[in-house]
Amino acid sequence: MPAAARHPLEPVLNPRSIAVIGASRDPSKRGYRAILSLQADGYLGTILPINPRERDILGLPAYASVADAPGEIDLAIVCTAAATTPDVIEACGVRGVRGAILLAAGFSEAGEEGRRLEERTLEVARRHGVRLIGPNTNGMFSARMRCNAWGLPDIPVGPLALMSNSANVVTSLVLQARVLGHMGLHTLLSVGNQADILFHEYLDCLGSDADVHAVMMYLEGFKDARAFAQVARRTTPDKPVVMYVAGRTGEGKRAAKSHSGSLAGAYPVNRDLLRQSGVTVVERLYHLYPVSEALSLFPPMRGRRVAVLSEGGGPITVAADALVEAGLELAPLTEATQALIHSVVPNATAISNPVDAGGGTDPRADYYRPITQAILADPNVDALLIVGIWGGYAERFSAAASADEEPVSRLLGDLMREHGKPVIVQSHFADLRTKALGVLREAGVPYQRHVEVAVQCLAAAADRSAALRRLAGSVAAAATAPAAPAEADALIARARAEGRHLLEPEARELLRAHAIPVPSHRMVASAAEAAAAAAEFPDRLLAMKVVSRDIVHKSEAGGVQLRLRGGEALAGAFTTIRERAQAWRADARLSGCLVTPMAEPGVELIVGVIRDGQHGPVVVAGLGGVFVEQLGDVAFRAPPLSREDALSMLDQLRFRSLLEGARGAAPVDREAIADLIVRVAQVALAHPDIVEIDLNPVIAHGSGYTLVDARMLLEGVD
Amino acid sequence: MPAAARHPLEPVLNPRSIAVIGASRDPSKRGYRAILSLQADGYLGTILPINPRERDILGLPAYASVADAPGEIDLAIVCTAAATTPDVIEACGVRGVRGAILLAAGFSEAGEEGRRLEERTLEVARRHGVRLIGPNTNGMFSARMRCNAWGLPDIPVGPLALMSNSANVVTSLVLQARVLGHMGLHTLLSVGNQADILFHEYLDCLGSDADVHAVMMYLEGFKDARAFAQVARRTTPDKPVVMYVAGRTGEGKRAAKSHSGSLAGAYPVNRDLLRQSGVTVVERLYHLYPVSEALSLFPPMRGRRVAVLSEGGGPITVAADALVEAGLELAPLTEATQALIHSVVPNATAISNPVDAGGGTDPRADYYRPITQAILADPNVDALLIVGIWGGYAERFSAAASADEEPVSRLLGDLMREHGKPVIVQSHFADLRTKALGVLREAGVPYQRHVEVAVQCLAAAADRSAALRRLAGSVAAAATAPAAPAEADALIARARAEGRHLLEPEARELLRAHAIPVPSHRMVASAAEAAAAAAEFPDRLLAMKVVSRDIVHKSEAGGVQLRLRGGEALAGAFTTIRERAQAWRADARLSGCLVTPMAEPGVELIVGVIRDGQHGPVVVAGLGGVFVEQLGDVAFRAPPLSREDALSMLDQLRFRSLLEGARGAAPVDREAIADLIVRVAQVALAHPDIVEIDLNPVIAHGSGYTLVDARMLLEGVD
Repeated sequence: MPAAARHPLEPVLNPRSIAVIGASRDPSKRGYRAILSLQADGYLGTILPINPRERDILGLPAYASVADAPGEIDLAIVCTAAATTPDVIEACGVRGVRGAILLAAGFSEAGEEGRRLEERTLEVARRHGVRLIGPNTNGMFSARMRCNAWGLPDIPVGPLALMSNSANVVTSLVLQARVLGHMGLHTLLSVGNQADILFHEYLDCLGSDADVHAVMMYLEGFKDARAFAQVARRTTPDKPVVMYVAGRTGEGKRAAKSHSGSLAGAYPVNRDLLRQSGVTVVERLYHLYPVSEALSLFPPMRGRRVAVLSEGGGPITVAADALVEAGLELAPLTEATQALIHSVVPNATAISNPVDAGGGTDPRADYYRPITQAILADPNVDALLIVGIWGGYAERFSAAASADEEPVSRLLGDLMREHGKPVIVQSHFADLRTKALGVLREAGVPYQRHVEVAVQCLAAAADRSAALRRLAGSVAAAATAPAAPAEADALIARARAEGRHLLEPEARELLRAHAIPVPSHRMVASAAEAAAAAAEFPDRLLAMKVVSRDIVHKSEAGGVQLRLRGGEALAGAFTTIRERAQAWRADARLSGCLVTPMAEPGVELIVGVIRDGQHGPVVVAGLGGVFVEQLGDVAFRAPPLSREDALSMLDQLRFRSLLEGARGAAPVDREAIADLIVRVAQVALAHPDIVEIDLNPVIAHGSGYTLVDARMLLEGVD
Repeated sequence: MPAAARHPLEPVLNPRSIAVIGASRDPSKRGYRAILSLQADGYLGTILPINPRERDILGLPAYASVADAPGEIDLAIVCTAAATTPDVIEACGVRGVRGAILLAAGFSEAGEEGRRLEERTLEVARRHGVRLIGPNTNGMFSARMRCNAWGLPDIPVGPLALMSNSANVVTSLVLQARVLGHMGLHTLLSVGNQADILFHEYLDCLGSDADVHAVMMYLEGFKDARAFAQVARRTTPDKPVVMYVAGRTGEGKRAAKSHSGSLAGAYPVNRDLLRQSGVTVVERLYHLYPVSEALSLFPPMRGRRVAVLSEGGGPITVAADALVEAGLELAPLTEATQALIHSVVPNATAISNPVDAGGGTDPRADYYRPITQAILADPNVDALLIVGIWGGYAERFSAAASADEEPVSRLLGDLMREHGKPVIVQSHFADLRTKALGVLREAGVPYQRHVEVAVQCLAAAADRSAALRRLAGSVAAAATAPAAPAEADALIARARAEGRHLLEPEARELLRAHAIPVPSHRMVASAAEAAAAAAEFPDRLLAMKVVSRDIVHKSEAGGVQLRLRGGEALAGAFTTIRERAQAWRADARLSGCLVTPMAEPGVELIVGVIRDGQHGPVVVAGLGGVFVEQLGDVAFRAPPLSREDALSMLDQLRFRSLLEGARGAAPVDREAIADLIVRVAQVALAHPDIVEIDLNPVIAHGSGYTLVDARMLLEGVD
């Protein structure tokens, strides 16, 4: 990497010299073990033990203070007690040390006193420009300088990075890599309390490091979620970022808080916005390593059509179920491909897809060369999944099988890259780390032990590729965000002057100013006006709703009358609503009633904007209606949105089949709904002081939609 | 086992003598490898090679025919070509051989000719009482006689049995046991085409074998699902039966069919009825082994409240999320338990639950003795989950940790059995098979590598215990099934005499005869009668529906009018319905119209009975309504049902929260709905010729329910 492009954290994460502050000759002390660990793993830089009472430690000259130590110092490992930290960092700052790992606990995670200590430490660090890892961290490992400031020995070296709120999880993943022969690690970071360096800064540095091919994360909580999203948007197009987000449930959130003091946000919001930024969010911790490994090796996946190849049944059935359940498709092989497979395995029981290359005879590894070539050349195929005993032919049958198994394994890597289609192998023999599997690894083809986990890798690849395509579109959308129309600003200014939120007629006008189609309505202030309004909507059933700054929940206040027809009915409804509203709250200020045609039946949706504590404005869209709303089937995105972003929100709904038309109804007009979502996102950006928009229900039809209700809340208004 | 209790298949599965038919000196032949495999694994019985051209094979005397071989013969392994099989079985039958493994393929799985060959073979076998394993099987392994008729070497021996439609899956699981040190195997069976012995017969034999502690199954399809359910009901109370059911999706079913020729039934029906029989159905293939192992060791689990114990964060957060998502609860520890934990770990960050015993200091294995004792004695706790690095203290910290880790590991097994509460350990070190983990295994405490998998084991234990409690209740319910009321039989007889299904008024009467509350109705045959009917339901909005043997879908035929009030409206509605029905189908035979009050609003449900191709009559209950129905949120059970069975159907619904009352409505009357479900099950049993009952919607209220529509179809009527 040229010096000009060097990331400011790069020397801290890959230090050429390390001062160990509180170095010790006592093997039970952190200040001894830190040096021992660096030495044991062959640290390539200079270790500088700092101890005022020792001349040498573990064969290295010791220095009385960091000031006395020679040369440039990239990193200090601070092994002294928490209370000493501000002074230690002061000395490091004066000396020009670039960064420090604070191993001690007893800071903000431990209560008010610790919080103040952390603040003082941070103040000193900021003043001198010393960057802090931790406090309350287990440390760091980075492979470039063989810097094992982590403690666990025998960390396999490779191209993956891992950042974690939990050191225990890092230990688990390192053991997984060590025992099962996963791809090795370039950087390990236990971020501790994130007093100074936050996740997004680490990510920015790891993103700029060509030796890192994928970044794994175990997340309990962000300190700056929006900054992370920004860095992720830059990073993910070039490098997979794969994350397990803990705290999906209330119970999980509480456990996370008691652990790292992290404040986890609402999981669905976190998940959807991370995915929008190109991050791969896995739902099981044990998917984290396999998916990261696979994505670091895969070319982009063009679609969702997967071919399955095996040498016998069982696993192909499990694979077919798992693929469909993960939202992938069984690729429909062309006639030509099927004919070729048939010519290779004349008595095959399955040649369409899944393909059973066993064909009732003893499995033959030589079948795999022509078959995999044909499948990967098939234009209907986006990826190949091999399941069963591949990688174990020599073990299962005879050593002679190696003569085909190894060269074909090597070929698979070439085919994957040549055709630009992911290839993954599920092998019952994965844990045995056979020779053939070693060849696969060298060839850059990932393998997994379990069918369902291999399928998760492919699903993640398809999702990642689709998300990155949308991300590119979003960037374009951001450039064309419109300004706020003057009339819309005027509506907000008037409401704010009166110390209230927008009334429904104002919300409707504001939407209209943003070119969102809103049904016509008439405001009426008396029974007589109500009766007169009937003539404006001939032949329509009408709805009447109270308009009052003091009544948010109109139905509960008895403020809604439906299916009205004729002047008499409208006049009666007006009187009823006024009486009920006053009964509900005697001092409610009534602005009148809004009369509008009843919507035609259709599918009830919610479209809106919420203000998230971590992410700021967030667009929400999903299923509405009394019952379906309880299912919580909604999607979240950060504005601005492209049309594709909006469509992806509909595609993501669990019960998107409801949009396809129930009981013979026409499918809903997806394009119109997508347009509405995009415009609502624009409204949120154009008017940052609207903190909540709630269009619920929006009734979607076969053509267009009807806005039935609109509510907008302003910031700082009670 | 006393001879009297010996299961008829026991000698076939644990043979004391084996004739190898088609024995060979050629190492490439099946007839050579079969003998080699038996010898290599130290078969304890007598091997009898059968070959007319050899004197001895692999050091054993060979016999010209099975007739010439000496002594009783429990089993023949048939290594000859498919076409020879009928003659071979004939010879075996004459010789009194009890059973035969047919390794050859080329039978019913290979087309019509093969199917006829299989039939001929079966006819011969039945005539002589020779029981057949296969054909198209990879064979069998059983530990009692060290009978390795499977081929894969080094099968670990233990108390688990495995039956599978796929030999490939057996290979996968054996390798899992071998590499990862899972509990070993007592019996392996690849059932092949199930020409003769079916799954339920194997299960019956394995269920009676005291050395088998749990039975695992990989299922693609039953040949007799009802017989299996019966045997499962007998077996599961004493012995866990754990199953992965393949073919959950259309794609999976097709793959299964092309593999084993099995015809998989509808997955949700299979799953629910198997669970009703006490079978544990896992949703991931890689859960099969861990769950079986754990259930074979666990005492019954009384409730769903789990305590989580760790020595640091991360895993406890993952555990909390996984527990809640699996339908388990975090046990609320008593004050006394929390006080004790606090006294052991003064600076603990979490002592309620999850419990973090690390407490900010270096982890100490000695903490675990008093803490686990306190937790397991806590009356609020039903099970204990330990997560993190237990089992790896010696490796992670120092060998000195063994002094506590090993005795506490041993103690955990005693505590589990003493308190009758499941204990499971998730250890990052599981794959390393450490000494401490070996002690855990000896102590009978299961351990797993991944948090989420350990949680699945506990969820399976809680589900199994609840299912077995219900199963005991069902048996009682079966004893009290009522006879068919005479008036109900008369209704059916009349419909059948007229060659039609039941009309809606008849279906309502039939339900009433079974003491199911049905809203009153009035049949009207003219506009005048319709007008007169208004007086019978004063102050109610009414519904009118066409009644015709030729109109099944009343709404589509324009045969339904809703929200009618007054004689005029009823007369008009009658005329409209008659006109529309005639327009829809000119020759429709109208029996008149049914007038009934509109139901009060509530939650729309479906209750009914379907006739399943594999399982016979199946009761279905779940969410109804136009949209929610599309979610397919229903549960299935085989009649008869107890009240608890019926309640479990409601508890199983994904969106059971809808039953708790939407937008402030009262929760639905679960007891009344359960009573309806139980009675509908009785209707199905009392009248076997009713092949379908469809009560949809049933509107559930805060008190009781309203039956809105009732449809019943008779067997053999078009």
